[in-house]
Amino acid sequence: MVNTKYEGFETPGVTVDLVLFTVNESRLKVMLVKRVEEPFRSDWSLPGGFIELGESLDAAAQRVLVEKVGVSDVYMEQLYTFGKPKRDPRSRVITVAYIALIPWQSLPQPASEKIIDLTWSPVDHLPKLAFDHKEIVNYAVKRLRAKVSYSNIVYGLMPKQFRLSELQSMYECIIDDKLDKRNFRKRMLATGLLKETGKKDTAGAHRPAMLYQFKSKEIVFL
Amino acid sequence: MVNTKYEGFETPGVTVDLVLFTVNESRLKVMLVKRVEEPFRSDWSLPGGFIELGESLDAAAQRVLVEKVGVSDVYMEQLYTFGKPKRDPRSRVITVAYIALIPWQSLPQPASEKIIDLTWSPVDHLPKLAFDHKEIVNYAVKRLRAKVSYSNIVYGLMPKQFRLSELQSMYECIIDDKLDKRNFRKRMLATGLLKETGKKDTAGAHRPAMLYQFKSKEIVFL
Repeated sequence: MVNTKYEGFETPGVTVDLVLFTVNESRLKVMLVKRVEEPFRSDWSLPGGFIELGESLDAAAQRVLVEKVGVSDVYMEQLYTFGKPKRDPRSRVITVAYIALIPWQSLPQPASEKIIDLTWSPVDHLPKLAFDHKEIVNYAVKRLRAKVSYSNIVYGLMPKQFRLSELQSMYECIIDDKLDKRNFRKRMLATGLLKETGKKDTAGAHRPAMLYQFKSKEIVFL
Repeated sequence: MVNTKYEGFETPGVTVDLVLFTVNESRLKVMLVKRVEEPFRSDWSLPGGFIELGESLDAAAQRVLVEKVGVSDVYMEQLYTFGKPKRDPRSRVITVAYIALIPWQSLPQPASEKIIDLTWSPVDHLPKLAFDHKEIVNYAVKRLRAKVSYSNIVYGLMPKQFRLSELQSMYECIIDDKLDKRNFRKRMLATGLLKETGKKDTAGAHRPAMLYQFKSKEIVFL
């Protein structure tokens, strides 16, 4: 396996890798697939693949999402490009990593059986990962935690309608910390990003509570 | 010119491009070089180049900085990877863009004569640029403006020692807006990132004022 030349320059392989997050059982989790080929055969890894020459980077990430997860309409953004010379032992491959967010409820159910050898790992208990994928996941977690505090990116993980207490739980799972209920409600309502649905959630053992939804899917920086 | 194959996948060319910012004459400016080859011969463009197979992306960006600007010790971070299929009319080339910051005083002087066909363009009056470089510059300006408000990244543009009024001017040039003097001083000193040098600036026509410096070059998120 040898890298090829382009105008005298050897060109690297270029892949995209997805860090697909969800929250389930009150934990922030990332999707991993078991590798079936060398190198790192049988190790867990991020879903990814080589880009095709006619498709943009975003389109390649979208294709991987559809092929490997079976969904398409999720929040996705480019994270960072990883390109250490030896990250792939075969030859030079650089990877453009993407973050994607999906509510657990939107995953094809049962989510863990959609693809054989797929798992959702809590981000703070990752198994051994192939290539530099642990570094990529850790970088993605850092970005997600920073970004929830200054944007409405969290909508990508929420069901369409929710109680404020559910939104608070989501934040707490992502940042792995507790928030003050009164401050949280006050701050969230002050952003102007939420609207009341007019409906109340009467299911379950808890008291009925107003259901909210995001006014827009557009990402806003607070 | 044809893209070559890697394990059955045609591989794109991979370049790095630098968005090198400075502030001079109270304006945020970006360094541009005139292209001497097709495509876009004689158009302005960002300094950049193909990555070499043995070097990391960061190392490639650093090499371009040294070769094209003649400096090395500046703040630099990866910005975003641009990869639309037709961005280079010759064949598929994706580019990993970097932001770099340099104080005007640190440029080899006279800065505009370091390399023939080099210019520093105000970011709000860009000439026609080659490839998708205008899109890249605009994205970089957006990132820089957002980031100065929640980090100490501005140190990359400041001389070693400065008056608080000079720091305020720098912020105003970057965000292209005026700031309240009292609030600015209060907020900056409250961050704990600055220290007094113990020296006063007595040069020029203005009143002597305390000179400050950043305690650390480490990037801190406020």
